[in-house]
Amino acid sequence: MPVNYSAPTPGSLSPVAGVTLGTAAAAIKKWTRDDVVFIVMSEGTRAAGVFTQNRFCAAPVIVCREHLARDGATRALIINAGNANAGTGDTGIAAARRVCSAAAQLVGCAAHEVLTFSTGVIMEPLPVDKMLSALPRAHLACVPTGWDSAARAIMTTDTVPKAASRRVDVDGTKVTVTGMAKGAGMCAPNMATMLAFVATDAPLAGSVLRALVGEIGEASFNRVTIDGDTSTNDSFVLAASGQAALRPVTEPRDSRLPVLRAALVDVAQDLAQAIVRDGEGATKFIAITVEGGRDAHECDAVARAIADSPLVKTAFFASDANLGRIVCAVGNARIVDLDPARVSLWLDDVGVVAAGARAASYREEDGARVMAKMEIGVRVSLGRGSARSTLWTCDLSHGYVSINANYRT
Amino acid sequence: MPVNYSAPTPGSLSPVAGVTLGTAAAAIKKWTRDDVVFIVMSEGTRAAGVFTQNRFCAAPVIVCREHLARDGATRALIINAGNANAGTGDTGIAAARRVCSAAAQLVGCAAHEVLTFSTGVIMEPLPVDKMLSALPRAHLACVPTGWDSAARAIMTTDTVPKAASRRVDVDGTKVTVTGMAKGAGMCAPNMATMLAFVATDAPLAGSVLRALVGEIGEASFNRVTIDGDTSTNDSFVLAASGQAALRPVTEPRDSRLPVLRAALVDVAQDLAQAIVRDGEGATKFIAITVEGGRDAHECDAVARAIADSPLVKTAFFASDANLGRIVCAVGNARIVDLDPARVSLWLDDVGVVAAGARAASYREEDGARVMAKMEIGVRVSLGRGSARSTLWTCDLSHGYVSINANYRT
Repeated sequence: MPVNYSAPTPGSLSPVAGVTLGTAAAAIKKWTRDDVVFIVMSEGTRAAGVFTQNRFCAAPVIVCREHLARDGATRALIINAGNANAGTGDTGIAAARRVCSAAAQLVGCAAHEVLTFSTGVIMEPLPVDKMLSALPRAHLACVPTGWDSAARAIMTTDTVPKAASRRVDVDGTKVTVTGMAKGAGMCAPNMATMLAFVATDAPLAGSVLRALVGEIGEASFNRVTIDGDTSTNDSFVLAASGQAALRPVTEPRDSRLPVLRAALVDVAQDLAQAIVRDGEGATKFIAITVEGGRDAHECDAVARAIADSPLVKTAFFASDANLGRIVCAVGNARIVDLDPARVSLWLDDVGVVAAGARAASYREEDGARVMAKMEIGVRVSLGRGSARSTLWTCDLSHGYVSINANYRT
Repeated sequence: MPVNYSAPTPGSLSPVAGVTLGTAAAAIKKWTRDDVVFIVMSEGTRAAGVFTQNRFCAAPVIVCREHLARDGATRALIINAGNANAGTGDTGIAAARRVCSAAAQLVGCAAHEVLTFSTGVIMEPLPVDKMLSALPRAHLACVPTGWDSAARAIMTTDTVPKAASRRVDVDGTKVTVTGMAKGAGMCAPNMATMLAFVATDAPLAGSVLRALVGEIGEASFNRVTIDGDTSTNDSFVLAASGQAALRPVTEPRDSRLPVLRAALVDVAQDLAQAIVRDGEGATKFIAITVEGGRDAHECDAVARAIADSPLVKTAFFASDANLGRIVCAVGNARIVDLDPARVSLWLDDVGVVAAGARAASYREEDGARVMAKMEIGVRVSLGRGSARSTLWTCDLSHGYVSINANYRT
């Protein structure tokens, strides 16, 4: 059960002009649900992406990077669940290319205008024939209202589909941003998360998209961690069909960009937080803010040390105000000249640590009251600057161990 | 239940001439067992130590560093379980100093000749009055055969006491090395582990001890990780009473040192492996060797990425040959120019990955056979050099979550 998140109602997802989505069942795992998504985008669509920093990146990631290295012109996206096509060597890359070629033939475009994404078990060969036989069915099923079924078809250990929409007014024209994503474990995105796709009908030039995708990924998917393991397949793609009746946005200082950027960040943050709320075994949603650092990098390092500590995560699971574990994690963030005597810590509004030791005002019952909640804010001040960073994470429960001890069965 | 490790029989622990140990109950937690250890060492004893790199290091670590910064002359060690005296600010440091002064009065030495160590809950004040009232009783109880009861008194979530002995012949004289240690969670020692103490009656000069302690810590306690969390209190101290009838060893190239160093490494590795075998919730013991790296540092980074991945650890717990998770962890070790196509992986004698993809010879049943064992060897070759590194770790089980969700209760 996700923490304060439920599946978006299909009606809440606005179609994006120029974008249609269809799904089909390829039986990539032993299941009967749809597991392949075909997204067709109108001519003139530009896309940009950010991908995993894992050195064992998946074959589709290698192919996507190659295809996007041209001008970003993109006509189709193919996504499969159940098999990651990672750790599969040259055979895996050939399989990803075959998927792109087959999709290109159906759409009537060049193979390099197709991007492909995979999620699932690592180091098993992609059943490419199953994929190829499902593609025509998925292509035929493409409709503008396909977001909800697409978000369902890309799920693995996710318990709910994740999608979000915003409609904003840009220069008197309604512009739509709709996106979908999946989690739910092996999730500590480094550049982007495991399969997130956000589309808009705004006419954004390739150069603008490429700048935006990194910025938005940094503000959303790169702000979450479930278990500290960056996956082999993390991909976040932003596409602009240009179907909205607007003059093209061709440079980053365009005055119409801020309102659009805000909508894109909103959708991406909704999706990123949904991934954490539906993290494997999650029972709590924890927002960690580190402030008073010399730069954002060190704030981020401290936030990650806290978020990825199994001891901190199990204390949250138990609602145990064992807050010394957070202090220990702060000390482990490898900030060589950190002065513990300047560190403070709050749990929601409760002051826990002041000047590096337990705050005089701290009472165990106040800590216990906050720890019992399903959503908890942790705030750390390093007392050495004015930089700040926030990360979202979940707890480590018996559910996480059970899910990952049984993943392949 | 530890993995293939049981408590040493008291008779297997050789007394070290010049070293006596006593314990007493100070009721630092709500328990009735002995929880304070007093170790008295003869005049002329020299000690050296390595301590945690956690920036929030505990008060006793600060005091130990200060005391050892002189000539290493040491007459007593005081250890308590149940409270870490970490995250306790100036009050904590004052408490550690009071413990040293009180012990010094009982022994008849200077306060700086006493080292003190704490293990237990972080960020709660050390009940120093309880400690001080227990010290005279622990001092009175000191006997040369006290190793077993001392190893029991320092336990926290450990399920068995950990101690080891070696007797070696140096130049015709029998020399003894005996040590004890504790784990069992918040354990990824960086410099040394949570409270390990090894003593010998060999006459080692302070300069020789200081060189040895780092080298031995690196080969033993720094080779283990249970949950990737370096504690605030890690301390490894090596003491030499000089009571053996040997000419003093005053320089590192002394020809008598290799046999002695081997005995010290043996005892330290025994203790380090015992910590992993008794890691919180551990059901498997895993030795990870990474070879073919450019330097030991990168081999170590890969071994740690594997050892600390919750996904890898839960797969071991489940005996599930989900070996793509190991490949993913290798890719996460932040070796920017790692070429996946040169990476190979073995599980014991079974080749799993060759040239970055599943080995042609690999059969799932072979992987499953190894995964079902209680002791498993993982070997990774990076194919880019001749450096090599080994790390010992355990799995992540429901037991780990239960222990850490209930630690303070």
